[in-house]
Amino acid sequence: MKRILTGDRTTGRLHLGHYAGSLQNRVKLQDEYDTMILLADIQALTTHFERPELIYDSLYDVAIDNLSVGLNPEKVTLVQQSQISAIAELTVFYSMFVSVNVLRHNPTIKTEAKQYGYADMTYGFLGYPVSQAADITFCGADLVPVGDDQLPHMEQTRKIVRRFNDLYGDGNLIIKEPQALLSKTPRLIGLDGNSKMGKSLGNAIYLSDTPEDVRDKVNAAVTDKNRIRATDKGNPEVCTVSKYHAVFTESEYENICELCRNGAIGCVACKKKLNDSLTQLMTPFRERRAFYEDNRHLVKEYIMEGSKRANQIGAQTLIQVKDAMRIKL
Amino acid sequence: MKRILTGDRTTGRLHLGHYAGSLQNRVKLQDEYDTMILLADIQALTTHFERPELIYDSLYDVAIDNLSVGLNPEKVTLVQQSQISAIAELTVFYSMFVSVNVLRHNPTIKTEAKQYGYADMTYGFLGYPVSQAADITFCGADLVPVGDDQLPHMEQTRKIVRRFNDLYGDGNLIIKEPQALLSKTPRLIGLDGNSKMGKSLGNAIYLSDTPEDVRDKVNAAVTDKNRIRATDKGNPEVCTVSKYHAVFTESEYENICELCRNGAIGCVACKKKLNDSLTQLMTPFRERRAFYEDNRHLVKEYIMEGSKRANQIGAQTLIQVKDAMRIKL
Repeated sequence: MKRILTGDRTTGRLHLGHYAGSLQNRVKLQDEYDTMILLADIQALTTHFERPELIYDSLYDVAIDNLSVGLNPEKVTLVQQSQISAIAELTVFYSMFVSVNVLRHNPTIKTEAKQYGYADMTYGFLGYPVSQAADITFCGADLVPVGDDQLPHMEQTRKIVRRFNDLYGDGNLIIKEPQALLSKTPRLIGLDGNSKMGKSLGNAIYLSDTPEDVRDKVNAAVTDKNRIRATDKGNPEVCTVSKYHAVFTESEYENICELCRNGAIGCVACKKKLNDSLTQLMTPFRERRAFYEDNRHLVKEYIMEGSKRANQIGAQTLIQVKDAMRIKL
Repeated sequence: MKRILTGDRTTGRLHLGHYAGSLQNRVKLQDEYDTMILLADIQALTTHFERPELIYDSLYDVAIDNLSVGLNPEKVTLVQQSQISAIAELTVFYSMFVSVNVLRHNPTIKTEAKQYGYADMTYGFLGYPVSQAADITFCGADLVPVGDDQLPHMEQTRKIVRRFNDLYGDGNLIIKEPQALLSKTPRLIGLDGNSKMGKSLGNAIYLSDTPEDVRDKVNAAVTDKNRIRATDKGNPEVCTVSKYHAVFTESEYENICELCRNGAIGCVACKKKLNDSLTQLMTPFRERRAFYEDNRHLVKEYIMEGSKRANQIGAQTLIQVKDAMRIKL
């Protein structure tokens, strides 16, 4: 069984954007692959080191978000990044094979630094692609599901792996070169039409939102602003709700757009339809969530057991890595 | 008993420059302090990652160099840096508290990058002061014996410690703020008069050199080039041999200089005198070295036992650090 490494930074609850872009896919992949889900509390530090409480709370929140959408704890391995010392050790080794300027010119690093408003980056933030290479390779992942924006990091990881094998492999592949599994799902826009969905923007539907919250947020979503009456002809191209239908009411999407264009469905009815879709999607999420919230000791156990398994795999990798590097006594 | 952290990069055998600048002092300090001697095989990677065999061989060489000058394995703790996972984990944490620009403007980093001829630094090299902060604090060192050039790194470590305690200490000092113990010994120049003594320059007397090697090297040392005959008046200020007398024939130094200035001692006799001093100094070194070379299994045991002890201390530190950072389950 091939192995997949995926995961989430523990900097807040997950929302429908995460579901559409990644979690949905994980549920499908869990039967075919040995799936490792990293609860990335170290990477969370690169941007949120001043908020240790948030990171701690998010560890459970993100784990439960993952379980709530149908990831089966008997199949997937939940891993708390900070518990895997091999990741830290590999990060230190890999930092020898990447130049500062290459990291500084990494387009995703540049974009994100700008988004976070960093005038001067921390050493840890600049190096998170190095740390990611360690995340991916500590467990010898074959595949990493990623979006477009993560492709530069995947290429960086592959370069580090090739450099390592060239330097120390003596003709053998000590570390496995991972492949990107590119997600074709476009990024889900915010309910306010903003291209980025995020907590700070207040435009996201969280997996943990109540039915009432979801209904209210959908009702407040931005539609075609030129449409005054329900019978006016609408333009789905500029409507946030239609983007959500495309993902969450996929089978009826073309039909709904047609009705909108003809003025045959009003925004209120259209939003109700979206709310129905989301209710249908999220009802089983909520049932699972209720179970795990009532049994947080189980969640803790899954993370502990998963981290233990990951630590064993990481220790094995580290033995091979150190052996190749002649780091021994 | 207060703790000292000191050590050497494992990038080659140690020479008289190391002895005069550091090892001599360690021997004195070992009775008063709990002395941890770091065999820095990870920091060695920052400049020598392409030479794993050299780093491996140097691990034993550097350990034996330390033991040969009189460091007592029953008193000091020899620690192989790569075996202490807490150092890697602390390095990752500390990397959040230092900005890239601060590291780039560190004067020692700049000087060394120039010396190594780095057009573009690796991420690991740029971050070695962060890693040093982890070296010093994993064992809660009180004091770190350093030369002038290491003062910026000590200040960086102290800044990181203060930042950590401010962020996570809740009024408590989680990590101890170390103090620099400034060495007053000036840097020993090379036998060729070059200000830097180093393997690549072929101008160093190694602690492991044979008596014949030492004699030949001393005889070839650069003296006052304007002095042709033994009875010419010499200038000790421009003579390499006099600089060595200042350190290794200290009690007679002023007298020797006087004789030289008066043309009362020739370079041949003066060099013989230095050779005698070095023979006296190094004879006990050679006896101890012979013992440890014949008993490398003992050296291995010292490093293993020392690393084990250090790992226990590091694990304890890491528990406190992670607890303060709320990194737990």
